[in-house]
Order: sequence, then C-alpha cells, then structure tokens
Amino acid sequence: MTPAAPAYRRLSVEERRSQLLEAALTLFAHRAPEDVSLDEVAEAAGVSRPLVYRYFPGGKQQLYEAALRSAADELEQCFDEPREGPLLIRLSRALDRYLAFVDEHDAGFSALLQGGSVVETSRTGAIVDGVRRAAAEHILSHLRTGEPGPRLRMTVRMWISAVEGASLIWLDDGKRPPARELRDWLVEQFVASLVATAARDEQTAGVVRAALALEPADGPVGALARRVLPVLGDAGHLL
Amino acid sequence: MTPAAPAYRRLSVEERRSQLLEAALTLFAHRAPEDVSLDEVAEAAGVSRPLVYRYFPGGKQQLYEAALRSAADELEQCFDEPREGPLLIRLSRALDRYLAFVDEHDAGFSALLQGGSVVETSRTGAIVDGVRRAAAEHILSHLRTGEPGPRLRMTVRMWISAVEGASLIWLDDGKRPPARELRDWLVEQFVASLVATAARDEQTAGVVRAALALEPADGPVGALARRVLPVLGDAGHLL
Repeated sequence: MTPAAPAYRRLSVEERRSQLLEAALTLFAHRAPEDVSLDEVAEAAGVSRPLVYRYFPGGKQQLYEAALRSAADELEQCFDEPREGPLLIRLSRALDRYLAFVDEHDAGFSALLQGGSVVETSRTGAIVDGVRRAAAEHILSHLRTGEPGPRLRMTVRMWISAVEGASLIWLDDGKRPPARELRDWLVEQFVASLVATAARDEQTAGVVRAALALEPADGPVGALARRVLPVLGDAGHLL
Repeated sequence: MTPAAPAYRRLSVEERRSQLLEAALTLFAHRAPEDVSLDEVAEAAGVSRPLVYRYFPGGKQQLYEAALRSAADELEQCFDEPREGPLLIRLSRALDRYLAFVDEHDAGFSALLQGGSVVETSRTGAIVDGVRRAAAEHILSHLRTGEPGPRLRMTVRMWISAVEGASLIWLDDGKRPPARELRDWLVEQFVASLVATAARDEQTAGVVRAALALEPADGPVGALARRVLPVLGDAGHLL
C-alpha cells in the first residue's frame, strides 16, 4: 500500500506562485477586485493565508497586479498569429482568441476597463496600455508595409479602441450577438476603417489592396471585399 | 473718489463655488490630479485654503469630482446639436466642439481616460461612462430612426470608443494631424462604420441612405458620399 498523499503537495517556489496566481486570476476574472478577499484566494488555492502573504507580501494589491500582468501576457499572445494565409483570416483567428479571453474573464475585464477600482494604479493603467500597444504592433507587422505612417497607425489603434468598446457593450448585452458574428462584424469594421483612411493615405491604400488581393474571391470575406472595392475604385488615383 | 475694492470681492455662495470650480478645472485640465494641490487651487482662485474647505469639505477628492462633473456637462453639450441641415455637417460641428474641448483639457483628459489616478473612483468612472452614453443618445436621436436596434446602437458606441482612442493618440502625437483634418477623418470613419454595419442590418442601411440623401452633392462631404454610394448600391437588397 502506498502512503496517503500529504495534505499540502510539495511544490517548487515557481509552481506554488503559479498556482496562487491561477487561483487569483479565476477569482478576479469573475468579480470586481473589491469583492475578492485574500482569504478566498487562499481557500481557492487550498493553502493558508500566511502562505499567500509569503509569496505576495504586498497582499491583494500585489496579487492583483501580478494576476493582471499574467492576463495581459495571455491577451497579448492572442494577437501573435503566424504570418500565413489571407490577412483577414489571420485577423479572424486572433479575434476568436481575444473574444474567448473576454468571455472567460468577463466581470474582471469589465471592472478593469470601466475604471475606478481601488486596485487600479498608474502601474495597472500602464499594463493595460501596454496590451493595446502590443496588439497594434502585432497587427501592423501583419500588414507588411514598411515603417507604418501616422495615419495607418492611428487607424489600427482606433479600431483597437472600437474593439475594446464593443467588447464591453457585448458583455453588458449578455454576450449578444454570438462571438462568431461579432468577430466577423469586427473584421468588416477593420476593413471599412482602412478603406476610409485609404482615401487620405497612400500607404493605407497599398495595405488594403494587398490585403484584399490575398483573399479568395469566394471566401468568407469575399463578399465584403466586393462591397468595399468600388469605394477603392473611386479613390483610384491612390491604387 | 470711490473706495478701493476690498481684497476679497463679496460673492454669493453660488458665485464663489463656480469660481473655485473654474480655478480647479483649469488646474486639473493641464496636469494629472496627483500634481495639483489644494493650496494651488486656493491661490489660483485668490482665496484662502480654509475657504476652499468650507465649500468642499471632502478636499481634493470632492473638488476633483465636482470639476469632473462640470467638465462632463460641458462635454455632453458638445453633442447637443440642432436638428437642422445635413447629418454629417451636424456631426462635424459636434466634433469641432469636442476636439476643442480635448485641446483645452489636454493633460487632464489624458490622465482621466488613461486611468490609474488616485482620485479615480467608481463615481468618476460612472461620470465618464455617462458622457459616453449621452453622446451615443444624442447621435442616435439625430439618425431619426425609430427605436435603435442593437447593431445600430453598437456601431455608434464603437465609433465613440474609436473617437476617444483617437483623441488620446492625437494628444500623444502633439495634436497632429490638425483638428480640422482629424474631424473630417472621424466623420469618414463614422460613415464607413455605418456602411459596414448596413450590410448586416436593415435599420442601419436605411440610416445611411437617408443621411447621404441629405448631403449636398458639392458640399464638404460630397466626395465621401460619392465614394460610399457605390458600396450601398452593391448591398442593394437592403436598400
């Protein structure tokens, strides 16, 4: 007979830290940070409160920031997509991962972005802003242009703001429409936004032309491309 | 000979309160709230620190919230536009006022929306969210449709998020491009966003058609209308 497992499994420092962070992340994902206590984190991880303090001497604030940093890393990875296949399909895959993240961290995501929580500091603000910037850089790198100019850059960042706003409304509206429909709609908004900028900016016009050239005519974005192309045709001197 | 004016002009309670708020607003507009002290507000208003406390017993926090409430009222009024003339001209005028506000309150606007300031609470978050909602209602009321459906509503709110994001980047980029160019670009983004949604939503398609029908062909948005109309033609079954 093997001996009974000890009440506390022996974990390495790194493993224990990950376990505590995961427990914290789960709690912070579904409730506003005000409503999560350190005792609950300890209980969810199956450890004592002093043990949580040993790893996070700064208490809930430190734990929240570490959990946010970990969530931010995950979120940034959503937009890290292989450079293969049509651009809008890549964007769709990134949005699928992003919307799954929003779905999974719903209440925490809303609380964080709506602001005003006691645990928000200039550090948490910087983490959130870092995710926005990283997402923009990922997208710009997929557009395979040279150094992106200010208009293209602002267009991408405007779209990221719109996606963020749409995510909050989506959570507020009980996750309607379904994630797949919202994803397609957001991709269409991206194309429409680029097309509007293309009329003002040659670099953006080049990006739109290159992106649509890679799309299969009968693919899921073919219909959109057919709707959008006449607009580009009219701004034909740019193309 | 008239006697010299007293050092403290006698003001009514309401006048004094307004004067203090105005001094606070000017200071909060150009610096992060962390960097503004109550002594500076008193000095800017030409009164003593105890007098500031008499009107705002909650100190800086209360003064900040009152200043924010006052700025929020001003911001909401930006989008309150007479229901006359072409829709996109009305939107341009509202954006002119909005961008003038952003220009005037630059540092305070950035600090507030980037979050993480010590003076931000669930109350300040609610004030900011109230402005977003009011702006959306103003815009929807101009679209002269019946009760706006979820797609039209989300499109308008996505655009408001995009405008907010663009404003922050604009301030970050040293207010480039010039406000008038940014304004026209944002109007074009609005039309592009509505056009993209129009393909999914009959109500939005009707709004786009009605809006463009009201535009003078040779007016400032005529070129945009000419670019956009072929797209609507392509989604003709909706129109």
